Amino acid sequence: MLTLFHYPMNAGSRFIRLLLTEYSVPFTLIEETPWVRRREFLQLNPAGSVPVLLAESDQPVAGTMTICEYIDETRGSMSRDKRLMPSDVFGRAEARRLTSWYLDKCENEVTRHMVRERVTRPLMPTEKGGGSPDAGALRAARSNITQHLKYTNYLAGTRNWLSGDKLTIADLAAGATLSILDYLGELDWSGHEAAREWYARVKSRPSFRPLLQERVRGLPPSAHYADPDF
Amino acid sequence: MLTLFHYPMNAGSRFIRLLLTEYSVPFTLIEETPWVRRREFLQLNPAGSVPVLLAESDQPVAGTMTICEYIDETRGSMSRDKRLMPSDVFGRAEARRLTSWYLDKCENEVTRHMVRERVTRPLMPTEKGGGSPDAGALRAARSNITQHLKYTNYLAGTRNWLSGDKLTIADLAAGATLSILDYLGELDWSGHEAAREWYARVKSRPSFRPLLQERVRGLPPSAHYADPDF
Repeated sequence: MLTLFHYPMNAGSRFIRLLLTEYSVPFTLIEETPWVRRREFLQLNPAGSVPVLLAESDQPVAGTMTICEYIDETRGSMSRDKRLMPSDVFGRAEARRLTSWYLDKCENEVTRHMVRERVTRPLMPTEKGGGSPDAGALRAARSNITQHLKYTNYLAGTRNWLSGDKLTIADLAAGATLSILDYLGELDWSGHEAAREWYARVKSRPSFRPLLQERVRGLPPSAHYADPDF
Repeated sequence: MLTLFHYPMNAGSRFIRLLLTEYSVPFTLIEETPWVRRREFLQLNPAGSVPVLLAESDQPVAGTMTICEYIDETRGSMSRDKRLMPSDVFGRAEARRLTSWYLDKCENEVTRHMVRERVTRPLMPTEKGGGSPDAGALRAARSNITQHLKYTNYLAGTRNWLSGDKLTIADLAAGATLSILDYLGELDWSGHEAAREWYARVKSRPSFRPLLQERVRGLPPSAHYADPDF
């Protein structure tokens, strides 16, 4: 069985869990605490970041997009109409562009700052940089959220799924990212009806269920987090 | 002919130029100034970032890894032993992991800070954030350089090319990144002989020549920048 080293409030980790579940690949989860640079984990991924997939013959595959391409090459490309990558070259480029929008651009502008300040910093020991959230960092991250919600609303309003007619990796990447911000109650869905309707469809998929049931200790989710008809 | 929107001191842009040249794909270059959010360019890539490739039928392909996969799918996979992606699935995962090491990890820890403080900020108008380099940001970026040079030295000392026996996208990504830091005189090669020997091999490739001939106005390169036997 495959093993995924992950962190529950990391968008890339959530994305890979969704991908594996959509392809019905069984896997075991091992949680890595981001600020503990565990020696055995660094041997699997010298970058020290999650997610890392321990694949066949315990070969480590490290990094979100690297794992995503690996899963497409070994599972997706044999899945015919269930493949989560479009079958044409420009369709794949569009799905990859949007996947990177959420997992790189939104991550760097919003998600990782939000998770660091609100989730990990309060749990970290002081000597590793733990403590109260940095109000300035939180404000900067919050000021960037609206453009990502607006862009999601634009995509959802002009297409059936975010990258086109069919569900692709882009929907799972966006869902993984937005589910973290939604847990933290940082998304104001009002005025973004197309995005809300799209997100309701994504989060009602069976692959989403395990994510919606998880809780961060001491930090309850927003009231509507696990409700598919929010 | 394909068109590449690029910025000369952007590692992703340099990487795609190397890739296209290695595959003998002719292309036209259009320089995008990072702080000018040109309306026509934003229509090609709403993220506003370089590189963007205008591919066949003027279809925009945006984002470094998205363009890299597009080039592999449309050129590389037909190039047999000249393909810059390993032919086995774990080889590809390793080449992608290392490509992301330089274009994401090193970019976020070193390259983009260095380029912002030393190249773009002095050229930017004050109202866009231009001015003198931020000494703190420079110091932080510099303190991270050694680990990347050390890791490159480790890879070059244990393998023929960075990701294995053959030249791959990983060597071009690392070369693109290190060539920017080398231009700026930020790399201390002493004590990193394996990395130096590998970099001399990469930079003596014909695909590298146009990069080595370019100059940033008002900012001459380090003395050995264009010298293959530095």
